[in-house]
Amino acid sequence: MPATATAILPIPAPSLRRLPLYLRLLRAWEAAGTHAQLSCTHLAEALDLDPTQVRKDLALTGIVGKPKVGYDRDELTQAVERFLGWDAVTDAFLVGAGNLGAALMGYAGFARQGLAIVAAFDADPARVGRKIGGKPVLPMTKLPDLARRMGVRLGILTVPEAAAPGAAAALVAAGIRGIWNFTPVRLDVGPEVIVEDVDLAQSLAVLSHQLAAARRPRRQTAS
Amino acid sequence: MPATATAILPIPAPSLRRLPLYLRLLRAWEAAGTHAQLSCTHLAEALDLDPTQVRKDLALTGIVGKPKVGYDRDELTQAVERFLGWDAVTDAFLVGAGNLGAALMGYAGFARQGLAIVAAFDADPARVGRKIGGKPVLPMTKLPDLARRMGVRLGILTVPEAAAPGAAAALVAAGIRGIWNFTPVRLDVGPEVIVEDVDLAQSLAVLSHQLAAARRPRRQTAS
Repeated sequence: MPATATAILPIPAPSLRRLPLYLRLLRAWEAAGTHAQLSCTHLAEALDLDPTQVRKDLALTGIVGKPKVGYDRDELTQAVERFLGWDAVTDAFLVGAGNLGAALMGYAGFARQGLAIVAAFDADPARVGRKIGGKPVLPMTKLPDLARRMGVRLGILTVPEAAAPGAAAALVAAGIRGIWNFTPVRLDVGPEVIVEDVDLAQSLAVLSHQLAAARRPRRQTAS
Repeated sequence: MPATATAILPIPAPSLRRLPLYLRLLRAWEAAGTHAQLSCTHLAEALDLDPTQVRKDLALTGIVGKPKVGYDRDELTQAVERFLGWDAVTDAFLVGAGNLGAALMGYAGFARQGLAIVAAFDADPARVGRKIGGKPVLPMTKLPDLARRMGVRLGILTVPEAAAPGAAAALVAAGIRGIWNFTPVRLDVGPEVIVEDVDLAQSLAVLSHQLAAARRPRRQTAS
């Protein structure tokens, strides 16, 4: 039974990424008062996915559908929320209170995902002292003490590229164990810190290639 | 030879998503004056990927490495840029000039990715008339005429959730053929429009599950 530093996550990321899609649909059905009982096929058809894949994804949460009956919508919702840790609130600090930081602080949808940005930190004195979405912008010097006192373990990184390594190091030194990285920098923070990158260049690559391919005349012969 | 509406893209999205990572590294090496000749293994090791996967990804761009020599760094850079369409500038319109929209308009990195946000549009009269990053915020009524006159085919959607379907429909009606969707709404715009979703909930799901799993005591026995 060899232990490896990367063995923490046996759950494939693509499955994790699909769970919020199911959750969004389940909540929409709850609001509409439909699909009190549902099957994998209902979810699969609405999201254009393979039903077998949907069943496997849902099984990760520990819930098992009943033959001929399927899933109870509200039980399934709770199982997915619990699995993602979205049934409880996780406090997070944000570092870098520019436009992107302010956008994230003002995004009401995070509450449904168990995320509460409780404070922002910024190296720029001109930004310190402001409030964004009712939350204070504090100087970086306050980060270590506040993180320990409040037990905050999740950091959101929205600083400019050049400031990213330093800000990430400050988060880790303050005891942060998960970083949601909105900078294009690949952070080098050691195996005990979980980093999830939101790399807009990667997303743009898919779109710009597809758009370019759609404009090109389709060639049927080998070139 | 059956034709399908979704047959435009034979390139797997994960490969497309990795190409910007290679490009970033190639540009860093160019700036540092290193790796004038390089192999897949150089890229694979720096990015913690499988060399065979890297070779397959690069082959998509049409470039072929020479045995024992590998790739010429600058030729490879150009091949990847050309494949992604990042060697030319694509003009884009942004709809929704709030904090997130302003963050994207102010992001200098897009220039390196061939993206120029040439104007923003907003339904809120209070925002219209402002300039963000030197670009004007215009009323939605100007969208159709300007899109046609300027030949803009790419739209960036950063409106609130409730406004997303209407704004997407306005983009499509104006001739936009690719939408970079920053809202959590799954857009229903027909098969001739390419949509790339940046769904923060999906990214957060990976991080919050991993963070929760890391905090739980590891169980070695079945539960």
